[in-house]
Amino acid sequence: MTGLDAAEPSAVTDEVRLARAYLSRVAEPGCIPVWDLVRNAGPVDAAAAIRRGAVPDDVAGATSARRDSADPEADLDAAIRHGLRLVVPESDEWPHFAVAGLEATALRRLAAYRSGRERHREGGEPIPPVALWVKGPGHLPQAGVRGVAMVGSRAATAYGRHVTTELSYALAGRDFDVVSGGAFGIDAAAHQGALSADGQTILVSAGGLDRPYPPGNAALFDAVGESGLLVSESPPGAAPQRHRFLTRNRLIAALSTGTVVVEAAARSGALSTAKHCLMLGRTLMAVPGPITSAMSAGCHVLLRREGDERALLISSVDDVLEAIGSAGEGLHRPARPDEPVAADELRQRIDRLDPLSRRVFDAVPVRRPAREDELARRSGLPVVDVIRSLPALRLAGLVESTEEGFRMAAAFRRRTSG
Amino acid sequence: MTGLDAAEPSAVTDEVRLARAYLSRVAEPGCIPVWDLVRNAGPVDAAAAIRRGAVPDDVAGATSARRDSADPEADLDAAIRHGLRLVVPESDEWPHFAVAGLEATALRRLAAYRSGRERHREGGEPIPPVALWVKGPGHLPQAGVRGVAMVGSRAATAYGRHVTTELSYALAGRDFDVVSGGAFGIDAAAHQGALSADGQTILVSAGGLDRPYPPGNAALFDAVGESGLLVSESPPGAAPQRHRFLTRNRLIAALSTGTVVVEAAARSGALSTAKHCLMLGRTLMAVPGPITSAMSAGCHVLLRREGDERALLISSVDDVLEAIGSAGEGLHRPARPDEPVAADELRQRIDRLDPLSRRVFDAVPVRRPAREDELARRSGLPVVDVIRSLPALRLAGLVESTEEGFRMAAAFRRRTSG
Repeated sequence: MTGLDAAEPSAVTDEVRLARAYLSRVAEPGCIPVWDLVRNAGPVDAAAAIRRGAVPDDVAGATSARRDSADPEADLDAAIRHGLRLVVPESDEWPHFAVAGLEATALRRLAAYRSGRERHREGGEPIPPVALWVKGPGHLPQAGVRGVAMVGSRAATAYGRHVTTELSYALAGRDFDVVSGGAFGIDAAAHQGALSADGQTILVSAGGLDRPYPPGNAALFDAVGESGLLVSESPPGAAPQRHRFLTRNRLIAALSTGTVVVEAAARSGALSTAKHCLMLGRTLMAVPGPITSAMSAGCHVLLRREGDERALLISSVDDVLEAIGSAGEGLHRPARPDEPVAADELRQRIDRLDPLSRRVFDAVPVRRPAREDELARRSGLPVVDVIRSLPALRLAGLVESTEEGFRMAAAFRRRTSG
Repeated sequence: MTGLDAAEPSAVTDEVRLARAYLSRVAEPGCIPVWDLVRNAGPVDAAAAIRRGAVPDDVAGATSARRDSADPEADLDAAIRHGLRLVVPESDEWPHFAVAGLEATALRRLAAYRSGRERHREGGEPIPPVALWVKGPGHLPQAGVRGVAMVGSRAATAYGRHVTTELSYALAGRDFDVVSGGAFGIDAAAHQGALSADGQTILVSAGGLDRPYPPGNAALFDAVGESGLLVSESPPGAAPQRHRFLTRNRLIAALSTGTVVVEAAARSGALSTAKHCLMLGRTLMAVPGPITSAMSAGCHVLLRREGDERALLISSVDDVLEAIGSAGEGLHRPARPDEPVAADELRQRIDRLDPLSRRVFDAVPVRRPAREDELARRSGLPVVDVIRSLPALRLAGLVESTEEGFRMAAAFRRRTSG
């Protein structure tokens, strides 16, 4: 058994796996220049170029510290030892739906970055991860569709922990994933509520998954790793540094259809997750509390905003369900082609697509199947974007795969012919 | 000394005082047909017609029970004994600013009532009172301009009472009147906070002012009557019946520039005050609380609404000040003509005028003074409406009175000539 087995058994080549493991070690998460290089050159050539130092200055600057010492084979070996696997964009387990939102924001940010209008931000660039280190039997692809993030203060009050546990228990009971970090307070309560309901909970860690942080939550990490999913952008051994928390927050927002801020002080890190949630166009929610509690002050700020920036007030799990609508209803498992789907449900699924997936979907023929390269021509998108969007479209029951390529799901033919 | 002295010493005739005292006894507050009769016939002829029974069926129905037994002289005598006075629309002490809002809503309701589209509602018709029984040294005309209503549940929690006291103390310290009912819980805390800050507090009672209700709050009524204002539409001796509470709530909303609901269960009476507040176009505010508290559920409902129906979330006194803007700033005492007023402040004062006052204001000449009858012609309004609106316009520093009539305040001449 070699370390390469730590990647999931699929059509992903060892070369790609090693390249992405290297990229995930050599650069910090959320690094725009590296993401752009990988986007243009592909992971294998990008990794090789970085190793050789044959890269633009900004990439070189972001990778020089570890370009020689990074050892992806050792990282994959360590992953095996800790029961982790590496999930890459080229694999079926990749959360395309969740990440597609980050691809849209990343392209906007890239334009601003390249134009020199904005500098690279050390923490929290809204760009896709190069790979994810994952542990647990949970189902990652549906994340971002049926996930609800619950975030808040480490120094939560008894009220905040109680409300979090109740809400996450109820959400898990309704088959929603609960997504949070690994901190004390709201994070821990969110996972505990979902675990109590035997629900799937996703813990997104800022450091390597072999290093639970805070150590006092090691048992929580174990419990989530046994039934749900532990997720990190950082390879085994990576320390949970401050900027990694900020960068991590974008993943929590991306892996959920909406974010509930339960308790947050005026300058809480949870507000950075709220920012990412809005940037991704997901639903931002906040739980009110006593105005005498500093731990609710951040929530009240979110609730007092006007327009699209305002969080929806959550006073019960029903409010959460109303706020996220039927997002992901019926998407928990891949839709079977023969499964009847109501027209308005199809319409809602289409409306929920991120802009990129929507563009791909619009290029898919109703009857005559088309292959990826034809879809790329029809949509005017790079083939790689088409390839990345298709799994999510299939998962949503909007597109079906045939031997001759892709076409719209049977439900559309019924609709258009009936 | 006769009972007639219970009315304030001004140009109001005994005949008018007696007529309005009779009207306030013979019909329940908020009676649309009686209000309409008084509007058309004037108080003296309206009272005489009711006594004779020479009135339309709806007026007869609303007044038959007490038309013979009502004894306004006895009521005015009783008022004197209890230290009360009768304030009527014809007097300078009448809160024109506050009541003008009710006149606008009353005209809309009247149209619906007369068309047969809507029936007379026993409780809570948004119409002006025929008169007010008042006790205390406070200043009534400015009510509705610098008043902030604080309402909520009788069964308030310690949290609700604490927040109410803190907010009302802070508002009183900033020279705002606090307006509320006389119940236990939020009402009592609102008055206590304002009294602690030596502020003016206005207690609007549903029954006669000689009968504090609940009796356990008699000391509170005494304290408010000594430094602020006790106000009731009902004459001495009237019992605090349920429908009088609902009708009373419109006065609380009208006598304030905005209403803060601090704690309210899902079906609290405070929500009827909130409804009147919105109907009058005033600012509706609500304090959030723990979502685990039934006493905050009504507040959260108000905060979750969309659009104009939504209450603004209040987490501090600064939020209240922001919400009501500079409403009434500088209006605590009548503006002196020579006092410099900024143009944007004038603009804001104009924007805050109710539709009726605005129409009168628009008819006032900048330089050449005009008398009431000319203003009526210019505005197309009945003379009585012009007469009623002018005190508020003067109080707002928008209009000045000269020997030849009324014209815009000096500030406008500076603006238009400079």
